[in-house]
Parts: sequence; structure tokens; C-alpha cells
Amino acid sequence: MDSIHSLIQYFTELPGVGPRQAKRFVYFLLSRNARYLDEMCRLIQDLKNTIKTCTECFRFFPNDTRDGLICNICKNINRDKASLMIVCRDVDFETIEKSHLYNGKYFILGGTVPVLEKVPEKKIRLNELLSTVERRAETEGLREIIFAMSVNPEGENTLDFLKQSLTPVTQKYSITMSALGRGLSTGTELEYSDSDTIKNALKNRVSERKSDDSIIKT
Amino acid sequence: MDSIHSLIQYFTELPGVGPRQAKRFVYFLLSRNARYLDEMCRLIQDLKNTIKTCTECFRFFPNDTRDGLICNICKNINRDKASLMIVCRDVDFETIEKSHLYNGKYFILGGTVPVLEKVPEKKIRLNELLSTVERRAETEGLREIIFAMSVNPEGENTLDFLKQSLTPVTQKYSITMSALGRGLSTGTELEYSDSDTIKNALKNRVSERKSDDSIIKT
Amino acid sequence: MDSIHSLIQYFTELPGVGPRQAKRFVYFLLSRNARYLDEMCRLIQDLKNTIKTCTECFRFFPNDTRDGLICNICKNINRDKASLMIVCRDVDFETIEKSHLYNGKYFILGGTVPVLEKVPEKKIRLNELLSTVERRAETEGLREIIFAMSVNPEGENTLDFLKQSLTPVTQKYSITMSALGRGLSTGTELEYSDSDTIKNALKNRVSERKSDDSIIKT
Amino acid sequence: MDSIHSLIQYFTELPGVGPRQAKRFVYFLLSRNARYLDEMCRLIQDLKNTIKTCTECFRFFPNDTRDGLICNICKNINRDKASLMIVCRDVDFETIEKSHLYNGKYFILGGTVPVLEKVPEKKIRLNELLSTVERRAETEGLREIIFAMSVNPEGENTLDFLKQSLTPVTQKYSITMSALGRGLSTGTELEYSDSDTIKNALKNRVSERKSDDSIIKT
Repeated sequence: MDSIHSLIQYFTELPGVGPRQAKRFVYFLLSRNARYLDEMCRLIQDLKNTIKTCTECFRFFPNDTRDGLICNICKNINRDKASLMIVCRDVDFETIEKSHLYNGKYFILGGTVPVLEKVPEKKIRLNELLSTVERRAETEGLREIIFAMSVNPEGENTLDFLKQSLTPVTQKYSITMSALGRGLSTGTELEYSDSDTIKNALKNRVSERKSDDSIIKT
Repeated sequence: MDSIHSLIQYFTELPGVGPRQAKRFVYFLLSRNARYLDEMCRLIQDLKNTIKTCTECFRFFPNDTRDGLICNICKNINRDKASLMIVCRDVDFETIEKSHLYNGKYFILGGTVPVLEKVPEKKIRLNELLSTVERRAETEGLREIIFAMSVNPEGENTLDFLKQSLTPVTQKYSITMSALGRGLSTGTELEYSDSDTIKNALKNRVSERKSDDSIIKT
Repeated sequence: MDSIHSLIQYFTELPGVGPRQAKRFVYFLLSRNARYLDEMCRLIQDLKNTIKTCTECFRFFPNDTRDGLICNICKNINRDKASLMIVCRDVDFETIEKSHLYNGKYFILGGTVPVLEKVPEKKIRLNELLSTVERRAETEGLREIIFAMSVNPEGENTLDFLKQSLTPVTQKYSITMSALGRGLSTGTELEYSDSDTIKNALKNRVSERKSDDSIIKT
Repeated sequence: MDSIHSLIQYFTELPGVGPRQAKRFVYFLLSRNARYLDEMCRLIQDLKNTIKTCTECFRFFPNDTRDGLICNICKNINRDKASLMIVCRDVDFETIEKSHLYNGKYFILGGTVPVLEKVPEKKIRLNELLSTVERRAETEGLREIIFAMSVNPEGENTLDFLKQSLTPVTQKYSITMSALGRGLSTGTELEYSDSDTIKNALKNRVSERKSDDSIIKT
């Protein structure tokens, strides 16, 4: 197979890319000059060389400071150590962090637990989470774990599995477990809402918006 | 114009129907027998003759009992009179009622207030709402008004306009004004959530689901 | 069931209409006045009373002239009797006729023959077609039958079935059977064309556009 | 900017890729091991080093034989030299070639001429085409030029521009200019066809499928 078709095949492994788009990528690259392709390779090599996994929260981060494998958020002494938000993936972490609303710490699970999964602990960093919670409770005054999962079957299943798995350690240290609140989200049309959303929207209805919650930046 | 094309034109006035679908409707009707068309007309005439607007909540309802123009929900003595939910349209009312979660009364505004609307009171039943609230406060012990609007610019604008318009009467009678709670709704992917939704999901986060709220059926 | 929900259920039988759109139709009608609904019924009754099936080509047509059950196209002496176009449905006839390109006569099959259909002659007006062809060959000098079917499995299957069924009568009277030409259609992107389309586009390639074909209006 | 965000920005330049998909690409790469990234770079470097532009037809081709810069099709003595198909891009060439229907030679324009373009000759390889046609007419017996353009405004405009530009040379050497035939393409629904497609489908209607055309493989 020539290098055009090898690269087309390679690109189809990228998420959401079919054979047609992969082919368009390759012809796009062919239409660029050699310097452009070299730059692409340099960026990919950079990714390999400069991005590390934080040993505390397990997120990918640029390790340019060369002072250990702890990311800037985990090192930041102004972030609230009493609160730990659990997210499934780095992209979820990015969305939360970009909102500039949360001032606590994070833990990236590295995956979700599919419904009916037989060996859930193989899909996510469960042991790392358990020891992180234990350590933070002992030494950093952890008081609340916030589960931030998508509201779909896989997200809900992951949430249930985590609650169950963390119950012993949270009871031992009197840590509150909470989940992101549910209700109408931006863009929700009332006419097309399901009963579950309406139920939560009714429960969480608000008469006045107050915020005396230290982990939420105002 | 012949009756095929007159009816095609007529059908294009139906919400969401373009000329192609309208034409398909007409040819569908042509392929049916005379009895089918007569039945359609009978149902439309029935609609005209048997559906009335409730004089209390202003929703359309089947007035088959011929005992006045008050709908079954407004007449139901088991519904909680202390609570009044304001919805924009009948379809919103239907969605809430079909969830079997709300046990209070309703008021249908009959529309929404578009952003920058100069004469908002022409778009919705504002006077009817004000006198309903006054009357219910005086005679039926109304204590809470729940705004149930879609989370889009028009819904939010309607909400703001209503809060402002109802402030005098709610202060006079110490009525709470609340809005459906916001947060993650069913199907929300965390990765694609906006800051506003995340903010509300953080505020409304729940550690345990309790319901000691009389208007929510359990 | 009340008349709102009866009519919702009725509307869901219209082609392409689901329960949500059906509900929107009904609430749209409710928001209109009585005269509007009466007008709708009048148009539907008109459809029933004034639209007839042409006894020659079997299309629906407005029979306002009350001079028999033959449509204006079948009666038109300026249309070329030597050519008969076979279409599956009235909407196909409408598309062809609206193009103002074809000057011959039509026959509406009233359906298509699904692939693997056991009793094809029950799906379309086969007997009527056979006797029409025989009669037109005997008395009107029919020389060409043009099959105008969509290029999808059902259309192709109908085409094959018709060719086979009409072979005896066309051989008897030396009638040519032809099918609409294939090639690139408006909007076709070459990159995404299938082999069959390319094959026909190559075969039918044109060096200069001439038209000395009497059935095509210029 | 760290290498994650540099690469995200880079990936958004790929055709059809937005910021979200670009981010997913990067996190996908992060989740793979170093060898995978090295392989990707190797394939990109291979593309740069092994794919050349054919000096005759101007298509990209794998130059692994190291015996000059002429592609396998241009070198193939079994391809019909009398016929030259003009396509806009390499992907169009690929679609035609993959159909295994065309046995002549190709010329890749390298672009299209947008409607109202002031300097059309800057968008495509016009001079190269003119000298190719001249040379092939003189030395290889070229008899037919086939324009294979998409049926959209840009494709049609390119076709018109080429016909005009090639008229002198084709007249000088008595070369036929033809364009891919038009008509119903695979998937076309008759009901939704435009007049232009119907016109061509009528013109190109076929009574029997014969193929005595040497450039079409059977």
C-alpha cells in the first residue's frame, strides 16, 4: 500500500473520521508544502515529549517547568483542598475549568463504566481514586466529593458505581458525596422535557439566587 | 385554483409544513375514501364545538360535561390551591401534567414575550394573570407562584417581565415567586455544557435526594 | 378520548407526521377562529366532491367542467399521442408536467412494485396499463412508452417488472420502450458518484446539445 | 501556548474539522502510546518523500519506482491515448478510476473556476492543459476530450471556461469536446427532480443498453 492510502487508513482511526474525510485530510496535506508537514510532525513530537499525566489528578498537562509531575492546579495553594470534583475525561475537566466557576481540586477517572460492565474497575482509575480520597482526607481536610458526570446511561451508571465504591471511605472520614444538580439546562424547551428533568426542576426550583458557597467563584 | 392546490396552500399554514409535505397530505387524502374525509371534517367540527377555554386557567379543555366553563383541574378539590404554575402554552401544560409530578394549579399565558417587545402585555394574558393572582390570594390561600418557562431568550425574557409585573401583588400578599430549577437535564453531555448550566448544576448539587415538598407527587 | 386527542391521533396518520407535530397542528387549529376551521372542512369536502380520477390516465384532476371523466391533458389534441409516459404517482406526474418539457401523454400506475413482492399486479394498475397500451396502439398510433421511475430499488424493480409485462404487447405493435436517461443530475458531486452513475454519464456523454426530439418542448 | 493547544489549533485547519473535533483528535493521540505518534509522523514524512506530482497528468502518485516522474497510468501503453478526461481534483480522478470504467488518459486541473472569477487561469492548470492537448494531438493521436465536472455552479463554470479556452486547439486538430452525460443519478427521486435533470433524462432516454464505445470497459 502506498503512503497516501496508508495515511488515509491511519486517519480513519481518529474519532469521528470516516474514509472520505480521511482522504480529504491526506489530499489537503499533499497540497501543502514540506515545511507544513514538518511542522505537523514537530507538534506531534512535542505532544509526546512535553505533555505528562499529573500524578495527583491524572489529567494531561504541559510539563514545561520540569519540576516534577504535578500539574499547576494540584500545586495551586489557592484552590480549595476541601473539595474534590470527579470527572470522567480531560475534556470534561476542560469544560468545567473554562467556566471559571469551580475553585476546588479535580480527579480524572480516565473513562466511564458502561451499563452491565462486568469489571468496572478496569474501565476507570478506581484504586487511584480510593487512595487519593484516603490521602486527601488524612492530610488535606477533604470534606466534599462532587461527581460531575454526563446525564446519560453510561454517566449515571458510573455515578452509581462510584457512590457505592466510595461509601466506606466517605463514611470513615465524614466526607459528603454530591452530584451536579439537575434541572432545565440552557436551551431546554419545556414542551420537550422528560419527567425526570421536570421532577428535578421542580425540586430545585429557586425563589432567589444566592451564592454563599465557597467553592463557587462569583 | 382547483381544490387540490387550494388545500395544499391551506396546509402550508400548519406549523412546520412546507409545500412538499402539504402536497403529500393532499394526495394522501385523495387516496383515502370519502368516509375518511368526512371523519376528518367531523373531528375538526368536534374540536370547534366541544373544546372550550377554561375561564380560570385559560387552557383548552373538552367541555363535554356542559356544567360551566371551568376545567377538571381547576375544579379538582384535591389539587393544592396554594401553588400556581405559570406556563406559556397548552403544550407546556401538557408536558408538566403528563409527568404526574405537580399537584398544584396552572395558568396558561397564551404566549411569550419576545426580547425587545414594546408592548409585552399584548403578547400574553397579563391582566388576567394579575386578577387571578389577586383573587386566589384573597380567597384560596395562594402562597407560591412557579414560573415554568423554557430556557431560551424568549422564555427568559418572559420570566423577567412576569417577575417584575407580579412583584407588587406578590409583596402585598407575601407570595413566593419561584422558577423551575436549572442544572444538567436528561441527555446533557458535560463536555458540551455552557458556563451557565455548570454554574447552576454546581449550586444545585445534591448530596441526597429528599422530597418533603407537598406540591411534588412521589 | 376527547376531540383534541382524537384529532391528534388522526393527524399522525398523515405522511411524515409524528405525535409532536400532530399536537402542534391541533393547538394551531384551536388558536384559530371557527371560520378558519369551517374553511378547512369546506376545502376537504371540495376535494372529495370536485376531484375525480381520469378514466384514461388515472390521475386525480379537478372535474369542474362536468363533461365526463377525462382530464385536460388526455383531452388535449395538441399533446403527442405517439408517446406515453408511465409514472408511479401523481406527484411524479406533477414534477414532469411542471417542467414543461414533455408533450406526450401519461399513465399513472398508482404505486410501485416493492422488491420481492409476490403479487406485483396488486400494487399497480397493470391490467389498466395493458389495455391502455393496446387501445392506444390500435387507435392512436402509440409508438413509444417512456418509463419515468425513481432510481432506487423499488423504482428499478417496478421498471423491470413493467418491461417484462409489456414486452408482448410492445412487440406485437412495434412500440419502443425507453427509460429516462441516467447520468449526473443537478447537484451531483463527481467525487461522491457511484460506478453506475459514472458508467451512464460516460455512455451518455454529449459533445453538443441538440434537440430534434418532438416530444421534448424547446 | 502549550503543545496540546498548538496541535488543536493546527488540526482545525484540516478540512471540515472544528475546534471540538480537533480537541478530540489531540486527546485521542494523548491516549495512545509514543510508538503510535512516531508511526503517524513516519507516515506523514513518507507522504512528503514518496508522493510526487506526475509531470504529464499532474496527479499525485507514489513514486516508488524511482524511474522518473510519470505515473503508472500515463506510462500504461494499454490505456487509450485517443481520449483525455479532464477532472478538477485528485479525488475526482480516484472516483472515476475506482469505477474501472474508463480506459483513457487523465489530466488533473488542480482546482475549479469560481463563478465571476476575474483571473480563471490562476485557479487551474490552464497553460499546462493547453500544451498537453497540443502535444497529445501532435504525437499521440488525441481525438476526444471528456470534461468530468461536478454539476454545481463552480463545476459548470469551470466547464464553460474550459470549452471556450480549448476551442482553438480542438478545432485546429479536430478534437471532439464532450462532457459527462446528465440524467437521473443513483438515488434520484423523480418527485424532487429539477427541470434541468428531467430535460436531460428525457433527451438521454434509452431503449436498450448498448456499449460499442472503446473507452468504456465492459
